[in-house]
Amino acid sequence: MRQHRFQKDLPFSEAEYQRRLRQTRAAMDRRGIEVLLVTDPSNMAWLTGYDGWSFYVHQGVLVFHDRDPVWWGRNQDTNGAVRTVWMSDDDVFGYADPYVQNTELHPMEDLAYRLTVMGYEAPRLGVELENYYFSAKAYLALLENMPKATIVDATALVNWERGVKSREEIDFMRKAARISEKIVDGLLERVEPGVPKNEVVAEIQRDALIGTEEGWGDYAAIVPLLPSGSDAAAPHLTWDGEPFRKGEATFFEISGCFRRYHAPFCRTIFLGDPPDIFRSAEAALVEGLEAGLDAARAGNRACDIAQALAAPLERAGIERGARCGYPIGISYPPDWGERTISLRAEDETVLKPGMTFHFMPGLWMSDWGLEITESILIKDSGPAECFCNRPRQMYVKQ
Amino acid sequence: MRQHRFQKDLPFSEAEYQRRLRQTRAAMDRRGIEVLLVTDPSNMAWLTGYDGWSFYVHQGVLVFHDRDPVWWGRNQDTNGAVRTVWMSDDDVFGYADPYVQNTELHPMEDLAYRLTVMGYEAPRLGVELENYYFSAKAYLALLENMPKATIVDATALVNWERGVKSREEIDFMRKAARISEKIVDGLLERVEPGVPKNEVVAEIQRDALIGTEEGWGDYAAIVPLLPSGSDAAAPHLTWDGEPFRKGEATFFEISGCFRRYHAPFCRTIFLGDPPDIFRSAEAALVEGLEAGLDAARAGNRACDIAQALAAPLERAGIERGARCGYPIGISYPPDWGERTISLRAEDETVLKPGMTFHFMPGLWMSDWGLEITESILIKDSGPAECFCNRPRQMYVKQ
Repeated sequence: MRQHRFQKDLPFSEAEYQRRLRQTRAAMDRRGIEVLLVTDPSNMAWLTGYDGWSFYVHQGVLVFHDRDPVWWGRNQDTNGAVRTVWMSDDDVFGYADPYVQNTELHPMEDLAYRLTVMGYEAPRLGVELENYYFSAKAYLALLENMPKATIVDATALVNWERGVKSREEIDFMRKAARISEKIVDGLLERVEPGVPKNEVVAEIQRDALIGTEEGWGDYAAIVPLLPSGSDAAAPHLTWDGEPFRKGEATFFEISGCFRRYHAPFCRTIFLGDPPDIFRSAEAALVEGLEAGLDAARAGNRACDIAQALAAPLERAGIERGARCGYPIGISYPPDWGERTISLRAEDETVLKPGMTFHFMPGLWMSDWGLEITESILIKDSGPAECFCNRPRQMYVKQ
Repeated sequence: MRQHRFQKDLPFSEAEYQRRLRQTRAAMDRRGIEVLLVTDPSNMAWLTGYDGWSFYVHQGVLVFHDRDPVWWGRNQDTNGAVRTVWMSDDDVFGYADPYVQNTELHPMEDLAYRLTVMGYEAPRLGVELENYYFSAKAYLALLENMPKATIVDATALVNWERGVKSREEIDFMRKAARISEKIVDGLLERVEPGVPKNEVVAEIQRDALIGTEEGWGDYAAIVPLLPSGSDAAAPHLTWDGEPFRKGEATFFEISGCFRRYHAPFCRTIFLGDPPDIFRSAEAALVEGLEAGLDAARAGNRACDIAQALAAPLERAGIERGARCGYPIGISYPPDWGERTISLRAEDETVLKPGMTFHFMPGLWMSDWGLEITESILIKDSGPAECFCNRPRQMYVKQ
């Protein structure tokens, strides 16, 4: 019987968490992993419900085959864990504060000790080697403190299990998509020559957090990106206090977020009369998007979407040179992608119903840029469904 | 002669960047480091001016003794780099897109190749082993591809050089502090029983990004934290759509941000009549803060602040068990601390004029919490200066 001191507002049903745990254990089995240490905050949340901005210190979820998972982190964050995870309060372990950001102690010493006490002195231990929050030092400290363990690279093991979304998850993404639409509507209304960029971002962030009647707004895993003019060649510039200007295009890369689920959505606004180069790029891009959506069917492969997109762009003389999308769903900063499939020529992953992607064929040329994108759901049959419902075009404001 | 294709709006003077580079090279010398690979985005920005939300892929700055630093990252982000760094466009290196989030290739292969071509086949190479964005896998890929290199742990080497702020940096932090004050003023005005939390966050995020007459608002490295009632025991919970309630305290942990510089500031709002336990905790905490500010003098040590704070709290029967502060300045998600000094009993670092801290003695008890904090500047003489100027108290609204 699980013991809980606090009432919880778990985002998902018990059945949903049990499905996720079952899938994860099966994936562990396939790689002979006895204990899995999950440090990616998105994976931690997906498995347990844990939700807090504590990923700037070491923490993790341990998954076992024969007992409920364990949440492990800084002592002061155990208070957040017992309020947000579905497991018993007894399954929440905290390490002492002197381990925090101390060059002479490492939290992995505490983790190694706990595993040993639990009877795992020499486990086949899976860790996420390629992860923002599992540092090289964490790896070395774990090796040193568990000399008998066999470390198995379990990078993206859980991420792959997240790929096909449940109905409950798709419902969250639809709520996020309503927020994305609201943000884009607000941009169209407010972007004018002379208006400072930070003021427009202030208004759309307000819109995003207020949310819609269907759901309150959470913070997105990436802040709005909105470079203008020549700067739009650079996909990841944020904003400043400079005004929007006539004769310039700005692309807006944004996402609504509902309880950590995202529906990224990008549109471009041109102030004034777009030169021919924008008009022809827009036409080729929209044609490519439509071809890509049609190729985004269960049974096709990730590369089929990329190839469908590439054909009209190539005819227009545009070579992108970057992948054109990635899976999306639950996420924490710094990225809202799942880091598994990439929509590119080399990726032959077969598409399944319930997979969700940000189909993101941004054009970043040497001194201009254009983004028109869709968040999509692979259906049982037929082409992909777009989460957002707004005209697929470059918006022009005179 | 440096070559730049684009006009730049560098946040700092050439002299300031040269000071930073000089200090970093001296620190490299002390540890016998020939080439330093800096992957912490805050360190990258501090050294070069680079500013973009691209830290979700591998990137870095290489610091040498005999030539300007090199910015290295994903091809598509070189467009952002040539627009934001002070070095020549030629010092910006990009790796091809197939290296991105690909399990069979790693960007560190590209980095190793470039170093070799530059004549560094067997360098003493400093890397930030304990860093969010230098993964265990990046370390292993670097070892594999540079078998003759001697890897030196340079964790926090640059962070330590950031400790003492220049006048230019302090000016940015003062601008951030004006934004922090505006956020707290907005909270006091808006927090009422029945108002949903996400709506209040929406309004204060708008305030934060609009900024003040002194400067436009940038995104803070941490989103607002604002747990209420029993949840305030948990320092890192974000918000939801639930209303504020009468009889509950909520602490607000926020920071204004101006061009990536922060001035974190926390206040607590109690709706209704606070019980005695809050009143006595508030009195002890304010007394402790004032004792700590008085101890925060050049020549004293980090632990002196912690001990000055602890005495009145102990008299009130409150044992905190966590550090009470950390250095602040430039930062990117997920943390606005510098991860060097900790204000705690074990840290004997001597305080110097120009150091800046978030003096952060949060009280997180088992089922309540209270935060009253100050961002501070160590002066040439006398007690610390507070960046923000608002009453040091728990706010009570009837």
